[in-house]
Parts: sequence; C-alpha cells; structure tokens
Amino acid sequence: MTESPSALPISRFAVPSLEDMPADIRERILAVQEKSGFIPTIFLALAHRPDEFRAFFAYHDALMERGGNLTKGEREMIVVATSGANQCLYCVVAHGAILRIREKNPTIADQIATNYRKADITPRQRAMLDYAMKVSKRAEEVDDADFAALRAHGFDDDDIWDIGGIAAFFAMSNRLANMMSLRPNPEFHMLGRQPKAK
Amino acid sequence: MTESPSALPISRFAVPSLEDMPADIRERILAVQEKSGFIPTIFLALAHRPDEFRAFFAYHDALMERGGNLTKGEREMIVVATSGANQCLYCVVAHGAILRIREKNPTIADQIATNYRKADITPRQRAMLDYAMKVSKRAEEVDDADFAALRAHGFDDDDIWDIGGIAAFFAMSNRLANMMSLRPNPEFHMLGRQPKAK
Amino acid sequence: MTESPSALPISRFAVPSLEDMPADIRERILAVQEKSGFIPTIFLALAHRPDEFRAFFAYHDALMERGGNLTKGEREMIVVATSGANQCLYCVVAHGAILRIREKNPTIADQIATNYRKADITPRQRAMLDYAMKVSKRAEEVDDADFAALRAHGFDDDDIWDIGGIAAFFAMSNRLANMMSLRPNPEFHMLGRQPKAK
Amino acid sequence: MTESPSALPISRFAVPSLEDMPADIRERILAVQEKSGFIPTIFLALAHRPDEFRAFFAYHDALMERGGNLTKGEREMIVVATSGANQCLYCVVAHGAILRIREKNPTIADQIATNYRKADITPRQRAMLDYAMKVSKRAEEVDDADFAALRAHGFDDDDIWDIGGIAAFFAMSNRLANMMSLRPNPEFHMLGRQPKAK
Amino acid sequence: MTESPSALPISRFAVPSLEDMPADIRERILAVQEKSGFIPTIFLALAHRPDEFRAFFAYHDALMERGGNLTKGEREMIVVATSGANQCLYCVVAHGAILRIREKNPTIADQIATNYRKADITPRQRAMLDYAMKVSKRAEEVDDADFAALRAHGFDDDDIWDIGGIAAFFAMSNRLANMMSLRPNPEFHMLGRQPKAK
Amino acid sequence: MTESPSALPISRFAVPSLEDMPADIRERILAVQEKSGFIPTIFLALAHRPDEFRAFFAYHDALMERGGNLTKGEREMIVVATSGANQCLYCVVAHGAILRIREKNPTIADQIATNYRKADITPRQRAMLDYAMKVSKRAEEVDDADFAALRAHGFDDDDIWDIGGIAAFFAMSNRLANMMSLRPNPEFHMLGRQPKAK
Repeated sequence: MTESPSALPISRFAVPSLEDMPADIRERILAVQEKSGFIPTIFLALAHRPDEFRAFFAYHDALMERGGNLTKGEREMIVVATSGANQCLYCVVAHGAILRIREKNPTIADQIATNYRKADITPRQRAMLDYAMKVSKRAEEVDDADFAALRAHGFDDDDIWDIGGIAAFFAMSNRLANMMSLRPNPEFHMLGRQPKAK
Repeated sequence: MTESPSALPISRFAVPSLEDMPADIRERILAVQEKSGFIPTIFLALAHRPDEFRAFFAYHDALMERGGNLTKGEREMIVVATSGANQCLYCVVAHGAILRIREKNPTIADQIATNYRKADITPRQRAMLDYAMKVSKRAEEVDDADFAALRAHGFDDDDIWDIGGIAAFFAMSNRLANMMSLRPNPEFHMLGRQPKAK
Repeated sequence: MTESPSALPISRFAVPSLEDMPADIRERILAVQEKSGFIPTIFLALAHRPDEFRAFFAYHDALMERGGNLTKGEREMIVVATSGANQCLYCVVAHGAILRIREKNPTIADQIATNYRKADITPRQRAMLDYAMKVSKRAEEVDDADFAALRAHGFDDDDIWDIGGIAAFFAMSNRLANMMSLRPNPEFHMLGRQPKAK
Repeated sequence: MTESPSALPISRFAVPSLEDMPADIRERILAVQEKSGFIPTIFLALAHRPDEFRAFFAYHDALMERGGNLTKGEREMIVVATSGANQCLYCVVAHGAILRIREKNPTIADQIATNYRKADITPRQRAMLDYAMKVSKRAEEVDDADFAALRAHGFDDDDIWDIGGIAAFFAMSNRLANMMSLRPNPEFHMLGRQPKAK
Repeated sequence: MTESPSALPISRFAVPSLEDMPADIRERILAVQEKSGFIPTIFLALAHRPDEFRAFFAYHDALMERGGNLTKGEREMIVVATSGANQCLYCVVAHGAILRIREKNPTIADQIATNYRKADITPRQRAMLDYAMKVSKRAEEVDDADFAALRAHGFDDDDIWDIGGIAAFFAMSNRLANMMSLRPNPEFHMLGRQPKAK
Repeated sequence: MTESPSALPISRFAVPSLEDMPADIRERILAVQEKSGFIPTIFLALAHRPDEFRAFFAYHDALMERGGNLTKGEREMIVVATSGANQCLYCVVAHGAILRIREKNPTIADQIATNYRKADITPRQRAMLDYAMKVSKRAEEVDDADFAALRAHGFDDDDIWDIGGIAAFFAMSNRLANMMSLRPNPEFHMLGRQPKAK
C-alpha cells in the first residue's frame, strides 16, 4: 500500500478524449473552454454517455439560466447549500466559485456551504434556502406550511418551483458526482476570491 | 375546516390543458395516451415547463430504455426500492405497476417498495439494490468496497453507472413529485396485479 | 450461490403443522380459514409459541375490535402508516388489504403506506396519523402539545389511548414480522383492489 | 405558570381505584403488592383497560418467565438496554432494579441502560444485546448475518426468538409508558443497590 | 475467548501511579481523595497528559463553580441530560451522584439521564435543558428563537452562555470518556440515593 | 424586517474592548495580532470569560502544538474534517486556512471540509480521519476494532489519544462557535490559497 497521497483521476469511470466524443458534445465543451479558460471536469466525466450528457445540461440550463424572480446568484446559493449538505466536493467547489462571481462576494460561498444559517443573506434568501434544504433532505415532508412561509416573502409559484427544482436537480447531480468521485478543477478553488475579481 | 377527504388535484402547481402545450409535448403525451390508455399524471404536471419536460424525459429514457446488462425489470426494481425509501407516492405506484408488468409478477413491487431485503430477488439483484439504496440515501459514502461487491456479482462499469444513474435520477424525480404532491393515476394501482395480465 | 429468486419460507423459524398445535389454537386458525378462505401466515408463524400466540391475538383484538370513536378503517390506517415507516412487509400487505376493504377504497392503502401526508384523508385523520407516527418513531418526545392537537380535532382520552396503543402494538408486531422475515399470503396483495369488492 | 417542580401523576390517563377494577385484575395486583411490598405503577396504569391489561401481562410472563437457555438476568439485560435506547423512564428504573436483583450486581443496570457496549458482560451477552438493539431500533435490517453471529455464541433458534421477542415486546411497552408518561415507583430507584441486598 | 465478565480497567490508556505524576497534579488528586473518600477515575485517567489535565479541570471549574443565576444543581442537570444523550457511562454515573447530592433528591438523576422530558423539574429548568440538548446534539441549528425562549424564562446572556458552555464542555468530556472506556468508581452508583444523605 | 444582508456582529455575546481585558489576555491577543496581522475573532469572543479563555487556549495548545507522530498539518486535518461535519463556519474557515498553510496545499482544506473520503490524503490519514469522525459523531460506539484499524497503520496509543482528543476538543469548540454564531475573519478565506504563499 502506497502512503503517498493519491494522484486521483477526475472520475472513477471512463473519460473519453475530445476526439472520441460526438461532434455536438465536443463543440459544447470547446465553447466552455473558450469562455472559462479550462474545461470543468463534469463535462468530461459525463461525455461517455452522450444522451445523458445532453439531457443533463439541457436540464441544468433550463433551471439555472431561466428568467424569473430568482437572481442567478440566488440560484447558485441553492446549489451550494444543498451540495454542502450532500457532501458533494465537485458541486461545492465549482458552484461555490460561480456563486462568488455572481454575488461579487469572496466569502459567501464558504458561509453557505458550511452553514447557511450563519451566512450574510437576507431573510428572504434564508426562507429560500430553508425550503431548498427541506426539498433536498426530506422532501417527503413538504406541505402547505412551507408554501405559506415562502409566499410571506413574496415568492410566487414559479419561484417556488424554481427553488425546489434546483434543489431536486442537484440532489441528482450530487449523487452522480459522489458515485464518480468527480474531482473539481483546481482553478475553481480560487475563482472569485479577490473582492474585485471580474 | 372541512372534514371530508379532499378531492386532491394532481399537482400543487399549474397543469396546462393539452391545447396550451407546445406541439411536441402534446404529441408525446397523446402518443403515451394511445399506448397506455391514459395519461400518466407526471406528463401533465411537468408540461408547464416545456424545457424541463423535454430534458426530464430525455434523461429518463436514456437511463431506462438503454441497452446493457440490466433488464428493464431490474431498472424498475431500482426505481421502486429507492422511491419507497424516499416516500414518493407517484413513483412507487406508477413504477410499481411497470415493475409488475415487466417481471410478470403481481407481488414483487409491494415487496420491493416496502422492504427490498425481504423480496424474492436473486443475490445479484440484492447487491444491485444495496448499491442503489446507498447512492439514494448516502452517496457521499460510496467507495471502492461498493464497486468490489458489485463486480463480485458480475456487474461491469457500465452496469454500475446505470444502477447509480437511475438511483440518482429518481432522487430528483422523487423530490419533484413530493414537492408537487403529484398524484398517481388510479389505473396504476391495479395494473399487473393479475398474474396473467398483459 | 444460486441466482434464481429464492422460494422463501413463510418464516425463518419453525412453523408447526395444524395437527401439532394445541386445540384452541388450531380451532382459532380453522375459524379464520373458514372466514377468509386462507390462513394468514401470522397465525401459523406464531403457533410454535402457544402462550405468545394467545396473548398476541388477545391484545390485537382488544385494540382493533374495541368499540369507541375510531372506526375500524381508521384503526387500520394507523397500522398501515406505522408499518410502512417500519418497513414491515407482512403488515403493510395484510393490513393494507383489510384497510381497502374497511374503507371500500382501492387506493387508500398504497397512499398511506407510502406517504400518509399525501393521502386522501380528513384533517382529523391526518392528526390521528401524525400522533400515531410520533408514538411509533419517537415516543420519547410525546408531550402536552400532542394531546392538545388531538383534542382540537375532537379526540378524547380513550381515542388517544387507542391511537397510541395501536401504534405501540404494531411497533412490536412489525419487529416480530421483520425478525421472522414473515411473508404475507399472496391473496392479500389483491384483496379490496376492485372498487366494488365485498 | 408555576415554577415549582410538578408533583406529576403516575399516568396522563385515568387510573382506577382498586375497588373499581375487575376482580381478577385486583387480585393480581394485590398479589404483586404482597410479594413486592408496593404496587408497580404499570399495574395501576393499565387497569383502566382490562383486556389489554390481561394480554399485556400474559405476553410479558410468556417471554420473561419462560424456561430456556437465557437466564432471567439476561432477559432483564435485554429490557434495560433497549429501554435505555428508547428513553423509557419507567422501564429503565423498574427493570433496572429487577436486573440488579437477578444478577446480584449493584452497578450492572446503570451500565447497560447508559451504554451496554461499556458494561461488564460476557462476549455472549454482548452478542445478545447487539441483536436485541438491532431488533429494537432497525428490525427491518435483520438478516442472515445476525443469526450467524448469534449461533457462533451458541444461541439456538429458541434463544434467538426469545431475544428478539423480548426486544419487540418492550418496543411496545416503552411506547406505552412514554405516551402515558408513566412514573416509576420511588422504591425501584434503590432496590438491589446494596451488594448483599435480598 | 473467555466467557466470564471482564474485569475491565478504568481506561483503555495508560494510568500513571500517583508517584509518577507531577506534584501539582498529585496534590490536586490527594485533595479530592481527602474530600470525597475516593479518587474519581477521571483524575487518574487524564493524569498521563498533565497539560491537558490542568486545562480540563480549569475549564470544568470555570463553568461548574462559577457564580451566576444557575444553581450548582442546575449545572449538574445539564451535565446529566447531555451525557445521557451521548451515552457516556462515567458522566451519567458520576455527575448523577453529584446531582442527587446537590438537589437532595434521590430520583432526579435517573429521570434526567433517561428522559429529561419526564423529569420533576420546573418549566424554567425544562427550557434550560431543551437548549442544552440542542447545543449538545445539533448546535449548528441554534438561532434567535432559542434565545427568545430562554429569555422568556428570565435567563440572561450570562446564563445562556453558561448553559451552552456546560453542554459544549461535556460534549468534549463525553467523547473523551467514551474513547477511553472510562469506568466510574463503584461508589458513585450509590451516592445521594438516601433521601437524607448529606 | 430589513431585506438587506445583515452586517452580522462577530458574536451574539458581549465582546470586550482590549483595554477592558485582563492584562494576560490582552497581551496574548496582541502577540497573536503581531504574528498574524489580525486578531482571530475567537480570541475576542472568548475574552468576556477570562478563566474559560485561559483554559480553552491552554487545552488547544496542549493538543495542537504537542510533539508526537502526528504532523501539525494532520492535526489541522482532524479539525477541518470534524468541523465540517459539525457545520462550524468559524472552524472550517479559520482552520482550513491553517491547514492550507501547514500542508502548502491550496485545495486540501476544501476537500476535507466537504467530504474527507474524496480528499488527496494517504491511507494512513484516511484511517486517522475515520476515527476522528467516529469520535466526533458517535463516540459511544468506539471499540476495539477502531483501535486495531489505527494500529494497522502504525499509530500508537499516544497518537490515538491525540486524534481522539483533538476531535473531542473541537466537538466543544464547534458548539461554542455555533452558539455564538462566531464569524471568521475575512482574511482566513484567502490565506494559503496561492500555492507558493508563505
């Protein structure tokens, strides 16, 4: 048994090379690389299942890039809080970076990933995260009182669907990442930590 | 406060009429109705979000109708066991029906939904469900020993991905159904309960 | 290791033949068979311990066939909800059948066994099941507020005793059935599923 | 709100006077009082339900006073360990006293009620309590490996039934006592604490 | 494997003899022995780490012997309730004895260790223990509502700090005792059980 | 109710000014400030209780700065893993920074705080953290098998004490920080994130 820290692969499962991927998937990945400067490992790790890859990102974008009353930063808060509760390394680190960038706040992601009850958020955002965590950890108990609490903060049915839908989607995503032992790119750990970072 | 049992709607959220849906969604729903004789409520309840509807069913079909070593009945076993653990009424009842039909077995779904450890399944299927339940309830603890146990039963990496992927997808689906209070069609309760049923 | 589904026995423990049972137990069993058309496996599986058999059914009948404000259907709701939470295959399937018959409702048992919060029941019945589930899963926390909530729905002390007593009795029964791996008779799976069934 | 410690009644529910009880119950209670010097509160608190009283004590005696390989002290160990886990004040205090007396050991009950893994017991008794605790807290997971572990310590099927049966019976009893807020007699706290006590 | 009950050592770890201890520690221990008539095992079991010994007892005394609105008996109630929840044999038995003595009440410790919700305490003490248990078992959820509930019973900020501080200190102490398998002195089991004991 | 993010204080409780502190405490704090460039909030938040402050840091230093086979980085790994599990914002952020510095590794703290099973650590460190997490979350179950697993990796009794002692101390510290809602200094979020940082 070696006692040096393992140089862990990005996934337990097969990761195809770019040239072996279907063209649409390769192109999407190259576009992400162009924009971000690196390829988030989730794109590479899902590519061995093209149909699942396409459905995963279509679903992700439908929830995360949708118009509506939740800001993009708030959507990332939901991802980071629930992923912390589900102990998903990739999601906490990668979406933590996006959250810092969206909110232009270098400390918010660490707060929400560790204990959202102690984070610098508004009471409305606290109610949003209380509901997201309930959907994530005990959705079977969701009932009228949860909806009333959200409506008291001005959330409408579309907002409530978005909150719960994002929590549900990342319940799936967290499990996929944990079963793969998906490793986040090192770049994500630093992104958005300088207060004035782009 | 009324004391009569509520005539509950199929979902807490808006359910569009068929004519108000995008054509591709309406056509898919009509095709399902043609084949099944009724429209499973999940199709109606997701239709108010067309992009999510399309991604959801694309993902579902990629996992459930894929070739590979798991039979269609075994895929439904995974759905029913994890949905029982997540207390998802729609998924237990609707996929319980499909499981009975796939396995031509009128009692298997009740067994697996209630306590899969007491079900009439093979040791290989038991190992499959042990892993599916771990992904569903504590994916953060998945490690090498889980993979070794599955390989000892002849499962390869593609099979292991399928088992975990289905468990993860229904972790999402169970949460969506619970947040909607999605009601299963009454038809599902009876389907496949006669041993010789089609 | 065989890979065919096991033809499981009705209990892990010895099951005496009818002729080897004490006369009073044999007679009770034959009377049940006469009435139901089959012998529920619980009667056979407890018969190797005659004193426990007698006490078990005396206790069961004292709680389930007692007069009082709870209907027989409501008593079965308590059994099915708590047995689902305790993952007791025999109790969910056998008492699910009785519940469908008592309530003349082919879908109520699947609802209550899977997630009683989503079932077609009255607010009074919901309060009854909330208390029954608390007694079943965390009786150590029962306090004045639970009694106040029940009284607000018109339950008196005798009713509250009945609800808790049934939940407590089946906490025992669920554990006995799980330690035996008691299998329900196949007949129970279908009983009461036709809306007009007797 | 009064701030003095409440002089709590022995039960939340009605406690009949001796003269109002059926004769057989009154006689049993007087016999216990004759033998013990006091009436354990459980006898008084169950007496308002004569049929349940009779079934409860018949069941109790069938399990606790049965011949077989488990000593009477070992049977009480099962009661005390599982009642501690279920936070049942009456059962821990009353059966703790009986355990001290049976084992002629003034410290064993406090050990087993608090953390049986730290108690002065034999490896065979540890295996017995591991199984009893599994039946008490997660009987749905009982499987072949549990039986093999018990058999390795020489327990036969009758012993295994006894262990599980006692754990199951007190799962009921603990819940009844907690729903009643049943108070133990003060005498029990001291009984058996002097090493040479009768 | 021997089947006789083990004569367990007081700790899994090294226990130095009095003459091998630093002088200040030996003197403290002799003073305790002088006062109590025996040496509580915690003093001996921590002595192999003199710096930790000194810090542990300095911290203990700062919290337990401080002036303020909580009585010494109430401080021990916090220790006994949280130690019962953490299944710490040493702490339940040793501090249970001190609690009986402080409160001149032979039954209070058994009540609070087993289920503080059933104990003969004032509503103010119940609120104190509710908060202590929350700090002990789920401190991450402590929020404004907890402080409001305590203030409604007249607790000020210093009192609230004391309650939580004691619960936190014994969260540490319980873990140390459990990792050592620290055994309580036999004397503690009996102390304070006679109503008129000093 | 304001909807802007709260500018939260460093603690729910009183924080004395430097001039109001006892001289020894002020001097210790100034020395920390001199060395670190800022005053970690834990020093300020504990200062209103000088005796507890002194005991806390004496205990901390006895465990964290002790010689022995565990490196200073490994000691911080224990803190970060258990503090993540206990959702302690201050401890995860402040000790995460120290861990990055000790290990000269900008990503290790995020890994260990989120899911230590997925971290780049040696098998020996994994065994260390498995034990630390058991002490932190279910110390009552610690037994011989845990010690055997640690010894198989070469840990001796002093090492095992250190691992468990640190886990126990931070079980206390996490609870104190959560009851205070202690906020970490913003500086900690960035420290050690540049690979070549001092």
